[in-house]
Amino acid sequence: MLTSTMQPRPLLVRDIMRRGEAYCADSKVITVFADHYTESTYAEVAQRATRLASGLKAHGVSSGDRVGTFLWNNQTHLEAYLAIPSMGAVLHTLNVRLFPEQLAYVINHAEDSVIIVDDVIVELLGRVTDQLTTVKLFIVAGDGDASVLPGHVVRYEDLLASAEDSFEWPTFEEDTAAAMCYTSGTTGNPKGVVYSHRSTYLHSLAETASGSLGISEQDRILIVVPMFHANAWGTPYSAWMVGADIVMPQQYLTGEALARIIGDTRPSISCGVPTIWNSLLAWSSSHDVDLSSLRSVIAGGSSVPETLITEFEQRHGITITQGWGMTETSPLAAVAIPPAHRSKGDVTDYRLKAGRVVPGVEVRVVSPGGDVLDPDGVSVGEFEVRGPWVTASYYRDEDLASFHDGWLKTGDVGTLDARGYMAITDRTKDVIKSGGEWISSVEIENVVMSHPGVFEACVVAVPDERWFERPLVCVVYAPNSQVPFAELREFIAPLIAHWWLPERWCEMEVIPKTSVGKFDKKVIRAMHERGELTVTMFEEGSL
Amino acid sequence: MLTSTMQPRPLLVRDIMRRGEAYCADSKVITVFADHYTESTYAEVAQRATRLASGLKAHGVSSGDRVGTFLWNNQTHLEAYLAIPSMGAVLHTLNVRLFPEQLAYVINHAEDSVIIVDDVIVELLGRVTDQLTTVKLFIVAGDGDASVLPGHVVRYEDLLASAEDSFEWPTFEEDTAAAMCYTSGTTGNPKGVVYSHRSTYLHSLAETASGSLGISEQDRILIVVPMFHANAWGTPYSAWMVGADIVMPQQYLTGEALARIIGDTRPSISCGVPTIWNSLLAWSSSHDVDLSSLRSVIAGGSSVPETLITEFEQRHGITITQGWGMTETSPLAAVAIPPAHRSKGDVTDYRLKAGRVVPGVEVRVVSPGGDVLDPDGVSVGEFEVRGPWVTASYYRDEDLASFHDGWLKTGDVGTLDARGYMAITDRTKDVIKSGGEWISSVEIENVVMSHPGVFEACVVAVPDERWFERPLVCVVYAPNSQVPFAELREFIAPLIAHWWLPERWCEMEVIPKTSVGKFDKKVIRAMHERGELTVTMFEEGSL
Repeated sequence: MLTSTMQPRPLLVRDIMRRGEAYCADSKVITVFADHYTESTYAEVAQRATRLASGLKAHGVSSGDRVGTFLWNNQTHLEAYLAIPSMGAVLHTLNVRLFPEQLAYVINHAEDSVIIVDDVIVELLGRVTDQLTTVKLFIVAGDGDASVLPGHVVRYEDLLASAEDSFEWPTFEEDTAAAMCYTSGTTGNPKGVVYSHRSTYLHSLAETASGSLGISEQDRILIVVPMFHANAWGTPYSAWMVGADIVMPQQYLTGEALARIIGDTRPSISCGVPTIWNSLLAWSSSHDVDLSSLRSVIAGGSSVPETLITEFEQRHGITITQGWGMTETSPLAAVAIPPAHRSKGDVTDYRLKAGRVVPGVEVRVVSPGGDVLDPDGVSVGEFEVRGPWVTASYYRDEDLASFHDGWLKTGDVGTLDARGYMAITDRTKDVIKSGGEWISSVEIENVVMSHPGVFEACVVAVPDERWFERPLVCVVYAPNSQVPFAELREFIAPLIAHWWLPERWCEMEVIPKTSVGKFDKKVIRAMHERGELTVTMFEEGSL
Repeated sequence: MLTSTMQPRPLLVRDIMRRGEAYCADSKVITVFADHYTESTYAEVAQRATRLASGLKAHGVSSGDRVGTFLWNNQTHLEAYLAIPSMGAVLHTLNVRLFPEQLAYVINHAEDSVIIVDDVIVELLGRVTDQLTTVKLFIVAGDGDASVLPGHVVRYEDLLASAEDSFEWPTFEEDTAAAMCYTSGTTGNPKGVVYSHRSTYLHSLAETASGSLGISEQDRILIVVPMFHANAWGTPYSAWMVGADIVMPQQYLTGEALARIIGDTRPSISCGVPTIWNSLLAWSSSHDVDLSSLRSVIAGGSSVPETLITEFEQRHGITITQGWGMTETSPLAAVAIPPAHRSKGDVTDYRLKAGRVVPGVEVRVVSPGGDVLDPDGVSVGEFEVRGPWVTASYYRDEDLASFHDGWLKTGDVGTLDARGYMAITDRTKDVIKSGGEWISSVEIENVVMSHPGVFEACVVAVPDERWFERPLVCVVYAPNSQVPFAELREFIAPLIAHWWLPERWCEMEVIPKTSVGKFDKKVIRAMHERGELTVTMFEEGSL
């Protein structure tokens, strides 16, 4: 082989920081408070990030040390995003919504030596401090009471004021850890993903593509998705790299609050989970709001209902674009921008997909048996992902079940079409493994619920001697309705593959739900196992 | 340090090829011929590229071997761009406009083993075949006469027809050579730059940024800049990565031809040197043309006159955006998109800059003494460039003078402002080194030529005992004008720094010019050295 003559420059977060600082010094970072906004320039933020690095170093933080952040989306958090990786330490964003035992677990597992915490949520951190084994220093942002924190506590502003205003940024290999984030799985301990400088740099560059978020200096981005969750989808870095103005909403995330913030600060782009946009839409239907500054709203984290897309379009002229990714994928892996040269009708079909695979990421669909399926838009399997910003393992974890021949198994089930659009139909843990094939619980739920006599329907896998698993349909009838199961079966039969047609049906008063309102299928499966459900059984293949 | 958990996926051209092939199979590649167009889908192009790789392998091409291309911008050339690096060989684009001795030199220096050549320019290659020492095979695209080629000759279509339709694409390190291109310097032998898979991938991704070319699948790009010159600015790869339609104009580059091509194929974006756009503008002023499909025209390679920008804007509503780069920088390093939040008046000022440094590239300005100058928009020095797609050396060349502490010395002189905009005032070889500072020959020329009595003015450096060098102004008077030099000095004095004011003046009938119409300063300096010029000398500092 012949080696190139190109410079061996590593891709480092420091260079993201340096570009925003050097060339976009007058771009703005705005933080929302209850009754006012603060505004700083990039030059000021970069200067404070430099002091933060100096101050952390003065307190003993060195290369590779983990520094936790327990912060809302605000300027302090952005300073931590810039300073900590750039100094060679590791930014560990802590999810403020974790259960206390999970919070203590991730801090101890990552061996955080310092935690930077917002004064308004000091209480949440205080609940677990007696379980922490590695933290030597708490740094409190704000003047609020922090007496619940034990040991060595300094104020963020005091640390910055006493720190030097310059810092000798080190250089190192690009696969050095820059940041880490734990997945918030519903079962077992959270698992850590360690991002590299390389992966963060590449991901940031990829988000500036006009076929992706397309963020540029012309934009002002309202970052609604939390910076403690999958790096706020990487937007703090991609925004800073190009010099976009940044609006940080902190904990003010209700529809009412967001309407006010958008009207006041006039962002051109925003990003957050669908429920946030639903709240905003609900508020706007009964109040006078001005959302006209928004050119683009990115929604991800769960599937976006069609009504949300059409209502935003029709009532506000705003395009909602779905994105797909996971903590394990940095996270951006797919964006549901419709393909070129499509008719208007098709456009909405494409917007309803989870996303189109972006350059840099590869996605494939794999059958339960491990075969790679055709990207034909029909073959259903588990999505597997590969690429330079996709994790190859979990931090200090022996989990091999999540990886397959160098690909990450995502746990999401669905189809991939010939243009790289992903449609997600299920999670692997909820899918029904029947005779070596998969049946989507979500699709059956949707067709059953499309019957007017049904209020809610939940489909779970139950054991079957012959087929390994078969679907059980749990029905909550609409008021004054009592459609016989046989009639429901006839109703759905033409709408699904014939071998999907469920034999097992039961009625429920109410479907058990999780704390965030999703069907709690684990509970239903346990009820079935204990014989607590009255199941009507039809003969296989009968109608 | 802590190492990340990210996948160690190399950045390879093969993955650029794979994405376009997999997800944009129905995007189009259109090639222009004298009396018709050919159109292929990405799927077809990728299939042919696969056959090309198989065919080359069957003819003994293996990893690291250099394969030269002597082709216009057409589908064949794109197939070579995709196949050759992806198979692990090295694409060597040969400039069809090189002098024969330079052409023979670069083929021998690169040790090309195969050359793919368009039948219509076989004659140009035939002139040097007797000097070639390493070429074992010529592959001729098209059916035209190729009898001037000696030895082993096959037809491109025959090679593809007999090749296997699948290929086992190898994997390798990302710093492996992908392509090479020689600079066409006016003195000395051309020097080779060897691009890596990494640099090509990063450069392609960077061009998709909305603050850069912003190319996406929604675009159709007319690639006017030759693929044998600095990789057509990387656009074949960035277009393919996102699935933009591509229009290849071959040798049809006159204003008339381009007007027809644009009207027929309706591209949304194009790229080429300013003289091309000047020809198009001239043609359009006396003919009925439809350029309405164009959203963006990128111009680079030399500075863009203000009139070209304003005329395109006013007459056609088309924005011309300058880009800056060199063969050594892959080439895209800066794009002159105006900054956010500027007034309309300022916008044109920014469009007249050479470009704004793009994310991934660093630029600094260095004084003749080697000091890094402030990016204040005023301090003049040589631009030095650094980044992962900038060369660190020349291929098999001991030139160290072009590099400085890990930065590439560009030979371009000018200022860098606080927002990262570069303004180029001169080339280092033409700049006047006076008392440890630099005087721009181009700026003095411009102010002298702004006097109505002057037709042309050329400024060169001549030796000076005290200041090392001082400017000599050579004036060609306008018809019927004979303004005294003293009056010209008074005229320009308020327009330039007082210490720039030239003491030496001479009149010329005509300024010697190079073959491309530029002032030939080497010739003027030689005339001065031989005492052939009648120089009027003013006292230093006098007016």
